[in-house]
Amino acid sequence: MNNPTVGDVPPKLTGKISPDRIRLLRAPRPPHGLIEGFQRLADATSVVSDIMDELGITGVIGASVLKPTLPSARIVGPALTVRNILQAEHVYETAREHVNRMAEFEAHNLALPGDVVVIDGVAGVSNMGGISAQTGKRQGEAGAVVSGGIRDLAHSRRVDYPLWATQITPVTGKWRIETVEINGDVQIAGVRVSPGDLVVADETGVCFIPIERAAEVLELAERKAALEDEKCAAIEAGTAVADLPTKA
Amino acid sequence: MNNPTVGDVPPKLTGKISPDRIRLLRAPRPPHGLIEGFQRLADATSVVSDIMDELGITGVIGASVLKPTLPSARIVGPALTVRNILQAEHVYETAREHVNRMAEFEAHNLALPGDVVVIDGVAGVSNMGGISAQTGKRQGEAGAVVSGGIRDLAHSRRVDYPLWATQITPVTGKWRIETVEINGDVQIAGVRVSPGDLVVADETGVCFIPIERAAEVLELAERKAALEDEKCAAIEAGTAVADLPTKA
Amino acid sequence: MNNPTVGDVPPKLTGKISPDRIRLLRAPRPPHGLIEGFQRLADATSVVSDIMDELGITGVIGASVLKPTLPSARIVGPALTVRNILQAEHVYETAREHVNRMAEFEAHNLALPGDVVVIDGVAGVSNMGGISAQTGKRQGEAGAVVSGGIRDLAHSRRVDYPLWATQITPVTGKWRIETVEINGDVQIAGVRVSPGDLVVADETGVCFIPIERAAEVLELAERKAALEDEKCAAIEAGTAVADLPTKA
Amino acid sequence: MNNPTVGDVPPKLTGKISPDRIRLLRAPRPPHGLIEGFQRLADATSVVSDIMDELGITGVIGASVLKPTLPSARIVGPALTVRNILQAEHVYETAREHVNRMAEFEAHNLALPGDVVVIDGVAGVSNMGGISAQTGKRQGEAGAVVSGGIRDLAHSRRVDYPLWATQITPVTGKWRIETVEINGDVQIAGVRVSPGDLVVADETGVCFIPIERAAEVLELAERKAALEDEKCAAIEAGTAVADLPTKA
Amino acid sequence: MNNPTVGDVPPKLTGKISPDRIRLLRAPRPPHGLIEGFQRLADATSVVSDIMDELGITGVIGASVLKPTLPSARIVGPALTVRNILQAEHVYETAREHVNRMAEFEAHNLALPGDVVVIDGVAGVSNMGGISAQTGKRQGEAGAVVSGGIRDLAHSRRVDYPLWATQITPVTGKWRIETVEINGDVQIAGVRVSPGDLVVADETGVCFIPIERAAEVLELAERKAALEDEKCAAIEAGTAVADLPTKA
Amino acid sequence: MNNPTVGDVPPKLTGKISPDRIRLLRAPRPPHGLIEGFQRLADATSVVSDIMDELGITGVIGASVLKPTLPSARIVGPALTVRNILQAEHVYETAREHVNRMAEFEAHNLALPGDVVVIDGVAGVSNMGGISAQTGKRQGEAGAVVSGGIRDLAHSRRVDYPLWATQITPVTGKWRIETVEINGDVQIAGVRVSPGDLVVADETGVCFIPIERAAEVLELAERKAALEDEKCAAIEAGTAVADLPTKA
Repeated sequence: MNNPTVGDVPPKLTGKISPDRIRLLRAPRPPHGLIEGFQRLADATSVVSDIMDELGITGVIGASVLKPTLPSARIVGPALTVRNILQAEHVYETAREHVNRMAEFEAHNLALPGDVVVIDGVAGVSNMGGISAQTGKRQGEAGAVVSGGIRDLAHSRRVDYPLWATQITPVTGKWRIETVEINGDVQIAGVRVSPGDLVVADETGVCFIPIERAAEVLELAERKAALEDEKCAAIEAGTAVADLPTKA
Repeated sequence: MNNPTVGDVPPKLTGKISPDRIRLLRAPRPPHGLIEGFQRLADATSVVSDIMDELGITGVIGASVLKPTLPSARIVGPALTVRNILQAEHVYETAREHVNRMAEFEAHNLALPGDVVVIDGVAGVSNMGGISAQTGKRQGEAGAVVSGGIRDLAHSRRVDYPLWATQITPVTGKWRIETVEINGDVQIAGVRVSPGDLVVADETGVCFIPIERAAEVLELAERKAALEDEKCAAIEAGTAVADLPTKA
Repeated sequence: MNNPTVGDVPPKLTGKISPDRIRLLRAPRPPHGLIEGFQRLADATSVVSDIMDELGITGVIGASVLKPTLPSARIVGPALTVRNILQAEHVYETAREHVNRMAEFEAHNLALPGDVVVIDGVAGVSNMGGISAQTGKRQGEAGAVVSGGIRDLAHSRRVDYPLWATQITPVTGKWRIETVEINGDVQIAGVRVSPGDLVVADETGVCFIPIERAAEVLELAERKAALEDEKCAAIEAGTAVADLPTKA
Repeated sequence: MNNPTVGDVPPKLTGKISPDRIRLLRAPRPPHGLIEGFQRLADATSVVSDIMDELGITGVIGASVLKPTLPSARIVGPALTVRNILQAEHVYETAREHVNRMAEFEAHNLALPGDVVVIDGVAGVSNMGGISAQTGKRQGEAGAVVSGGIRDLAHSRRVDYPLWATQITPVTGKWRIETVEINGDVQIAGVRVSPGDLVVADETGVCFIPIERAAEVLELAERKAALEDEKCAAIEAGTAVADLPTKA
Repeated sequence: MNNPTVGDVPPKLTGKISPDRIRLLRAPRPPHGLIEGFQRLADATSVVSDIMDELGITGVIGASVLKPTLPSARIVGPALTVRNILQAEHVYETAREHVNRMAEFEAHNLALPGDVVVIDGVAGVSNMGGISAQTGKRQGEAGAVVSGGIRDLAHSRRVDYPLWATQITPVTGKWRIETVEINGDVQIAGVRVSPGDLVVADETGVCFIPIERAAEVLELAERKAALEDEKCAAIEAGTAVADLPTKA
Repeated sequence: MNNPTVGDVPPKLTGKISPDRIRLLRAPRPPHGLIEGFQRLADATSVVSDIMDELGITGVIGASVLKPTLPSARIVGPALTVRNILQAEHVYETAREHVNRMAEFEAHNLALPGDVVVIDGVAGVSNMGGISAQTGKRQGEAGAVVSGGIRDLAHSRRVDYPLWATQITPVTGKWRIETVEINGDVQIAGVRVSPGDLVVADETGVCFIPIERAAEVLELAERKAALEDEKCAAIEAGTAVADLPTKA
């Protein structure tokens, strides 16, 4: 497991992708306590989405699009981004000749505990399988968000590594896609994501918060959550609908 | 909780929607025993759909379109309808200025125990969140059917309030949509629904039965269910496929 | 239950479909041990899909398209194919007059233990309901794969009969569709399937393997699975990502 | 033809829709010269869309969604809105019994010259046919925008009445839909439209401008168009790309 | 060109498809005068669709689905049906080895003047190209309707052979699909079509009329067209909207 | 206009994109005569697609996906690639503050006569407008292929600059997208395209040929076209269908 400490140095690279295509070896880290703050929020993505709305920040995707593999999972962590595109060669040839240009393992290699791997992937094929999920888990990642297919659901569940993905398919990306960038800016289901952006994901969807706005978002989200708690208490107490508090 | 008794009067309104846009304060109530009859049916939506077919009644939607949040839930109750459309203003402005024009809480306010809130909502945004679901539960509603997005799945599950919806997303409708009608005729995924129509929903889908045909549908459904029980018994008894009864 | 033994003769036909539209009464059977071999594979559809890629065999469909009703189910068995198309008459008339032209019961009638019923069905309506699933279970089938709708999920789960289908809907196919062929070549979500092809299905998707290639696929799949086990062991042992074996 | 003059009175109603469902007999009229100003803009929808962006006004839909029937047509005029929803009865019965609840002819009846009929219609069926288009033309309308199907393209082209619609189909709405509101607020492909909003439509798409912002939009659009003319002149004059003006 | 005369015998077969897969060498021919009657109808598919509605006949598809290649074309003729499904082999191999299993040329071979080739084809690939269209034209066919892709638009236009298709793509079906049936019952975009069914197609869509109902449909369509002519004359004469005849 | 001669030097950059994001100032040029050879092919994309199939080369997209703005246009030329992704900021702010990060003008700046600009763009917004098209025309480009929206169809037609695009919309990309790469490898509708790849586009679709295979493709395409000419001649000569040559 990679521990981000003073004197933290990135690990030996796997070489699966040219080093000049790794835009950042270490994405910006969130300040102390921020992750924990977001983790304490109930109905996290909704309250975060509301605050992002109020602040004019875009970056929320519904669970109808990014479907969770572990419905009860809720994760918070900085994005470690990966961009995959199609290979040019015919898969008939690359599969026979074992031409493998996927490099999300380099992302696992670079991951620090708590990171969320965010893959701008290729539709119709798997951009992350079970062994990869298991590796991510071993590295201490919080989970992954994939625009594109994933596979081996039983495997990733067994190791308790949560994924949000647009598709599920046994068809490998190994012979079909190429990882062309790590820790560059990517595009996920109509949202731009930068390395280090804070990812908040639960059964309702996924929010990507620019890291420099994250503290502000958290503070307002906590206030809003408190107002919501008051409203829920009033509902439980039997307050008539017309008399419920309206601020939350 | 609102109890529909002799002398039942609707509650004080919330004012979230102009009273002249509430077409009916009280939708027609099903005759005694009808709800219970439908609740006793196994594989309810399928047998009801078959009878509606035979009687030339439209109004059935599959669970691929209206997806349940609680797969084991099965509900029966009269429709309390809500119609939402988009706001005209830019969400950047309405979110900052807290311009909230949603009024499904007025529907909760008017709901009688057993009602099913049916929302002809806006796609891509949430038309009902967790606090709203909790309020509906407190009011004694059976659940809700939403054409459009919903959010806070963990919250609505925790309070055991079942929803069927076309989408799931954290993005609030608060600053984006306006409730323009309660208890008017609405359109849900290609079906017209009137207030008081009987809603039967389970993991296979949702049926909307015109209330004036509901007793007839139930009677025929019960007969059909009995025939199906006979067929199942024959299967369990080992009857050869070619000799199974063919009426069900 | 139909036991395929020496002297096996097909059962008395149901007559739901003209006998000349049954292309084969008995599809080719896989050699002894083959089914069991595939059943032992972990992450079965992914490893099988990889080998099919390497051998230039098409025939894999993701679980985003063919969605499982029992996520933990994993089945392997020879395909017994059914082709449904729409009826020409108006459903208003056929429902009233009980014109039923579905004949997947003839497939159940012909099924041998372990068979997988593969239905090239009609979209938007149910091509297999709960009683049919129960019949299939009684006949010893492994399950069914349906391009089109199915219904009665609670029923098929109760009898533990797994289905993979593109849609779920209460709307019956009885009055709307006609079974026009049994054990002909069919097309499922962009894949051609022949009777006797080996079906491997799990939560990640469905593979259709031409029976004459199945032994070869299994042998290579077992080798690959062993390599994957080694890789997983290395991950668990804490091997650095850059030093993990790369053959799997 | 209806001429909006001093003392203008709406015509005798057709009775195809209950008068209380006509929210306004006369939508607000644009100030003198406004229509003509927008008509003079080249590439009208694009320059208008840009100004709406700058002013934070939503309301633009692309021609991939609202497809024009007459590609060279370009229209500008105030919206006269119509809302259609499905009928509840089975079309088998309503067609046989000629139950016609469409009332877009009431909109033609109320139309003033230059109006654009904007129909929030039903998908999969025709919300406006050739005779209706011919009537609209006779009334002096500029054209129509339909969210839903239309039919009789040869007819509407012959009378030179341009339409923008999401679908084309021979299937009539007559027996399938009901007009439930005229000159209410409607929703067109993700945009809210109010009666009197200015519609600008060409081969690239459709813009809906709130009437109270229209003069402001026009003034800025004219300025922008002038800058674009300068840029085009520079291109024609052979200015190097790096030296082209960048304001437009 | 094939002339259907007394003593008409089908031509020598091409052998591209097994003769036992040709269900009929000659589809039923419409009675004398029927084709011409339908050809005289203005706005043909709409008026025909209306009558089919009134008689409870299904079989109409909009031009948003079956898009015409020659917008001004309008054709009427009996269906000569073709069914294509995918090949099982990998296209990498079949293309290299020139394995061509398409047989729509056998349909051209069997076509009588005025026939409409109706192909239940494969999506994403071409089911009819330019040379095939030219052959159909030479044989005297009225045109073709294709559920699936077509190609060589310039070629088919040059020889004035109109097509209605769901897709356009240069990708050949030659190495990818197999024609498995000629003059069987097929399914086109949710409609069942039998050989000999009358096809009426124009820019608004396509109607398939069961041949045994065609005379009845024509008679009612002519009556309706006459009523529509009266309504159009009234519009041209300036009749107020509220006073227009309402029967058409 | 940029003339690629001996001593050709790229022009002064516009600075709209960081120079280190321009992967190549000059893409590889096709050998003399190659472009002209492809231009002579009738039904060009189909015959080219066939040869690519035979050689195991992927890279063909149908006109249902990439829709032409000028149906009669047919272009051949080397790809000059552009990659756009979304901006991160809210469009409400970027539009008001005129934050423009599009840089396809840098591509026009770098274009040599005959180049085809290939944009891996953003869906739902315009990635190329009329002034940009006019600039491309002035620079001598053959046209453009855009995965994403375009606008100002009247403008680009007036200057006779053909485009193939997935969408049409007035909504500008200026304030919404950022050009992040020029002459890198891009992905267009499921096909990988490299700078210098030969683009062949007509009304049936678009082919992208790796430049190093282009001569081989042309030679085989010419042979195939000759065989097709023979077949067309045989058709015109009245050869019976069963006797037509089968090689083309």
